[in-house]
Amino acid sequence: MNALVNASIKQPFQIEEIVPSVDCGRFPVKHIVGEAIAVWADIYRDGHEIVAAELIWRGESESDWQRAPMTHQGNDRWVGSFVPGRNGRFTYAIEAWTDEFATWRHGFELKHKANVATELDAMEGASLLTRALNGDQEVTAKIAGACENFLQSGAYEILLAEDLKKAMAEGQSRKDLTRSAPLRLLVERPKARCSAWYEMVPRSQSPEPGRHGTWNDCIDRLPDIQGMGFDVVYLTPIHPIGRTNRKGRNNALKAGNGDPGSFYAIGSHEGGHDAIHPQLGGLNDFRRFVAACAAAGMEVALDFAVQCSPDHPWLKQHPEWFKRRPDGSMKYAENPPKKYEDIVNVDFESSDSEALYRALRDVVLFWVAQGVKIFRVDNPHTKPLRFWEWLIKEVQSRDPDVLFLSEAFTRPKVMKGLAKLGFTQSYTYFTWRTERWEIEQYVTELAGYPEREFFRPNFFVSTPDILPFHLQRGDPWMFKARLALAATLSSNYGIYNGFELLEHEAIPGREEYVDSEKYELKSRDWEKPGNIKAYIALLNRIRRENPALQQTSAIRFLPVEDNSVIAYVKHSADQTNVVVTVIALTGDFREFWLPLGDLQVRTGSNALSPVTALENLKSGPTSPVAYGGMRLWIDPVHDPVLLFRCLG
Amino acid sequence: MNALVNASIKQPFQIEEIVPSVDCGRFPVKHIVGEAIAVWADIYRDGHEIVAAELIWRGESESDWQRAPMTHQGNDRWVGSFVPGRNGRFTYAIEAWTDEFATWRHGFELKHKANVATELDAMEGASLLTRALNGDQEVTAKIAGACENFLQSGAYEILLAEDLKKAMAEGQSRKDLTRSAPLRLLVERPKARCSAWYEMVPRSQSPEPGRHGTWNDCIDRLPDIQGMGFDVVYLTPIHPIGRTNRKGRNNALKAGNGDPGSFYAIGSHEGGHDAIHPQLGGLNDFRRFVAACAAAGMEVALDFAVQCSPDHPWLKQHPEWFKRRPDGSMKYAENPPKKYEDIVNVDFESSDSEALYRALRDVVLFWVAQGVKIFRVDNPHTKPLRFWEWLIKEVQSRDPDVLFLSEAFTRPKVMKGLAKLGFTQSYTYFTWRTERWEIEQYVTELAGYPEREFFRPNFFVSTPDILPFHLQRGDPWMFKARLALAATLSSNYGIYNGFELLEHEAIPGREEYVDSEKYELKSRDWEKPGNIKAYIALLNRIRRENPALQQTSAIRFLPVEDNSVIAYVKHSADQTNVVVTVIALTGDFREFWLPLGDLQVRTGSNALSPVTALENLKSGPTSPVAYGGMRLWIDPVHDPVLLFRCLG
Repeated sequence: MNALVNASIKQPFQIEEIVPSVDCGRFPVKHIVGEAIAVWADIYRDGHEIVAAELIWRGESESDWQRAPMTHQGNDRWVGSFVPGRNGRFTYAIEAWTDEFATWRHGFELKHKANVATELDAMEGASLLTRALNGDQEVTAKIAGACENFLQSGAYEILLAEDLKKAMAEGQSRKDLTRSAPLRLLVERPKARCSAWYEMVPRSQSPEPGRHGTWNDCIDRLPDIQGMGFDVVYLTPIHPIGRTNRKGRNNALKAGNGDPGSFYAIGSHEGGHDAIHPQLGGLNDFRRFVAACAAAGMEVALDFAVQCSPDHPWLKQHPEWFKRRPDGSMKYAENPPKKYEDIVNVDFESSDSEALYRALRDVVLFWVAQGVKIFRVDNPHTKPLRFWEWLIKEVQSRDPDVLFLSEAFTRPKVMKGLAKLGFTQSYTYFTWRTERWEIEQYVTELAGYPEREFFRPNFFVSTPDILPFHLQRGDPWMFKARLALAATLSSNYGIYNGFELLEHEAIPGREEYVDSEKYELKSRDWEKPGNIKAYIALLNRIRRENPALQQTSAIRFLPVEDNSVIAYVKHSADQTNVVVTVIALTGDFREFWLPLGDLQVRTGSNALSPVTALENLKSGPTSPVAYGGMRLWIDPVHDPVLLFRCLG
Repeated sequence: MNALVNASIKQPFQIEEIVPSVDCGRFPVKHIVGEAIAVWADIYRDGHEIVAAELIWRGESESDWQRAPMTHQGNDRWVGSFVPGRNGRFTYAIEAWTDEFATWRHGFELKHKANVATELDAMEGASLLTRALNGDQEVTAKIAGACENFLQSGAYEILLAEDLKKAMAEGQSRKDLTRSAPLRLLVERPKARCSAWYEMVPRSQSPEPGRHGTWNDCIDRLPDIQGMGFDVVYLTPIHPIGRTNRKGRNNALKAGNGDPGSFYAIGSHEGGHDAIHPQLGGLNDFRRFVAACAAAGMEVALDFAVQCSPDHPWLKQHPEWFKRRPDGSMKYAENPPKKYEDIVNVDFESSDSEALYRALRDVVLFWVAQGVKIFRVDNPHTKPLRFWEWLIKEVQSRDPDVLFLSEAFTRPKVMKGLAKLGFTQSYTYFTWRTERWEIEQYVTELAGYPEREFFRPNFFVSTPDILPFHLQRGDPWMFKARLALAATLSSNYGIYNGFELLEHEAIPGREEYVDSEKYELKSRDWEKPGNIKAYIALLNRIRRENPALQQTSAIRFLPVEDNSVIAYVKHSADQTNVVVTVIALTGDFREFWLPLGDLQVRTGSNALSPVTALENLKSGPTSPVAYGGMRLWIDPVHDPVLLFRCLG
């Protein structure tokens, strides 16, 4: 009988195909606080007994389960839902049991109708009542009352009363109680779902050419960024920069006199990952910058890049955290045959790796203590997956508001794996996707199952490392189209400063900026003629005003015949807000039919109504929908983007 | 650092999306002994290290793993395979690790080609050699030799030699070794995959009307059954039948004098589930019958029906195994408002349930000891799922050749659940599926993922309980068509005796046989004119000769325009045998185009070749394929079935 002791086969119910779940519960499903999560499962047992089920959940450190009833949807498929009331990590599971009284009642009712019910049949039901008299007072009173009434009158109807059935469902013990394997849930704040990032290099924010930017300069820049409608100001690394093997302009092996070096060569005698580059200002100035951002309705995101310059204090304080070569020399970063002699990587396999893990965690916690709640992590795919899983949990267990963006441009499975293990948002291949078929295919993949349960894309139009070929001609319509694609396909998106000025000078034949800001101070005229700041502001305003655009999963592409135009519809969870986006993918004038099909919108009356008109979200006028669509034209030179709100 | 101690995040690799697997390894994948099983998985770690992986497996009670290499198929997807050499339960898993030497070698080779490799770079590789000198003697000798050669000559080529790479892949320790969660595999004999069942009621096999059949009568019937080409002779229950509340003919509540009763009312003073009805003969006679079947190339399948008649010896020996009502009376089986007073069910929740479980297991083991290796289980869905999971494991751990057929006609999830927990084969809805769309839909579901990993259908054309409406007219073409559908759609199928005689008299308006054999002795003229025994024999011979028909998963439906014809192609695992089946679903003459598309067959030369001709498997002639298909006609009155072998 040993096998019977095995808990897994002691359970009378099979509870299967639980949705959502990620890799059988190995990784958490991601969700947003305050939004209902529906959990589906196949639930069954042998026989024809009447069964009941509950969805149960609790915070990872809580002992008491919260409960919500599940309802049968047919074919043994059940659903229940709950609304997580706070951020953090949760466990959820499903419990099923046999409703013994309802089962008896069902049979008794059939016999009663067929006039074959006997007193003995009734007594079987009554005996269930007497066994259910030890729970909640009110319920017990109801059951006891019914029991007494029946014993006095013998009237079968008493046992068949609807409210007794309900009382017994609550009062009787849960026979055959079976609990599914536990599943994990990671609940984050709404910013995890929707954010507009502005990437900026603090040292380049000085208005005087050649002068190193300061926090005060950065503060002065905030109204401009706020005016464009961004809500995350993401800073490239702000730490002291090493001098040993410092890189010069355009990634030159030797720095010229006064070259500031790459801000990714972190650490000098002035400090490491928890220090600020002295020319930017002190910690108090930084705190003022954080406060100024908050006052402007924006958050600061810091760059977390684990690598060190050879001058990083850790090399002296913790030499065992770094790999040496057989001759005792330092092992620099390399990507054979290339070497990066301004950078050394920490050794996650160090004999003292626990202290290293803790030190890296404490770097993040240090900046959290300064008010930073968002981290963009540089190249996470070249550090152990288990390290990130540990670090993110460690930080979020102390502050569940902290969000992490994975900057991994690598193989698809690895990018998804980082998202599974806890990264809040992820960089994507969007930066290079330009054809309609590949955009539709990629977004459909990310918006679909199982990716939507764990992968939140953040679409960047460019980065300091990537100036994609399609932007290198500097066509304004292309900048606008790419901005609009990023901002409307994905509820998380970002631009890198200079994009608004149409910066596009590349190293010939490569997707890299010439005179990259990574290796020199930049000075820009933020009011440069031809800038698209007003256009960005308009798009961000439309995003803010339309919940349909504040999520990434509910998207459907519309079959416009002309492949040089892409069109899609997104809707808010309650379907009251439905937005159609149409974007030109080439620079030519286009006239085309926009097929809307059976598009519906929930109107004030709370009913779904066919879409009868489209309101132009940029220019205001409303046009009627006829024959299931609308004739439209786009003149990309004027504006490559149409945005409509659907009216019922 | 506590979280780091968690084994699940100590593993550097993520191993995901393992196929095949059933419910995350909760249930076993099913497979046939001697057939290769390919296991796929996503395998990745951080960084750009070169990785390796193995598929590992072992019998459930074995301690040593067997191993097969996995190969990378692109996009981090790997595959490996093995051939289970015996029946039984296995565990399999995937191991992945970092090939440290190959990783070094890759970088060194790039540097060497770019002429930037240094002695220090080489020494890093050589140091890996010295750490790998403690394994297999031959491998160690090769590594030590290379090491010495290099130290003497300093020639980098020595370190880059292909055979050293191979030796190091074997010799070095497996860095970052990660093992996936274990998965389960249930390996059964080929009969689990392919079988043709003949269901027979032993007591009706007497040639003299009114005389109770005996084992000798049954033995006399074997040449007839063998002649039709069946390989499983399945007997309805053979045990003593109760007298209390015995059912009469046509399920009458009172048995007439001499009525034999339902063979599902098991047990009398003459014995219970391990006894034989005295009028059939003794245990020795039964053993002779089993031996006679074996000699004819057939196996015996027994009916395992757990319920008892009120006269079953267990009621006296183990009163605690049965439920009583509040007044102390026996609780009969019921399906309210109906009662079955000739049957009592054992109480799986009995206080002495462990003894009950063991007794039921021992019943099966008793018959196994008599040479019976196949059991058709009656109504398993009304007994606890955990009981079957336990029982099947218990029996198969003693004799892995024992197979179980689940006779559950119930909700789809429950039928699949029984298959998951261990039933070898399962009854299906085929008995009622007559329209082309529903046959295609149902077979596609069963042949697809994940069902094909655990659910082996057994298509019965009728059963003692079910005479489907479409057979009730007794049309010979319909009997032939249904037989052919069952025999060619599913590699496991069966008929109930009398089908070959076109028996079709039903209780009006119901799908039940009138004068059901369940309640009376039957006497048949097995040579009755109009019988389709030769037709059955032909189909079973074609099944035996064509491996394509000996499996259920590799099937594709062909788009014949005429919906009154269904056509499909099946192929053997090696694709040397490809069979096209065409069956009329109505009784009218039909002429139609059979589109074969890009059908291919592996020819003697071992290459895949387009199909150029079809050999008629019933009549012999070969016809050329032209324009991707063939013009055909079916005259159902003559023969509703076309069977072709594809020629290259």
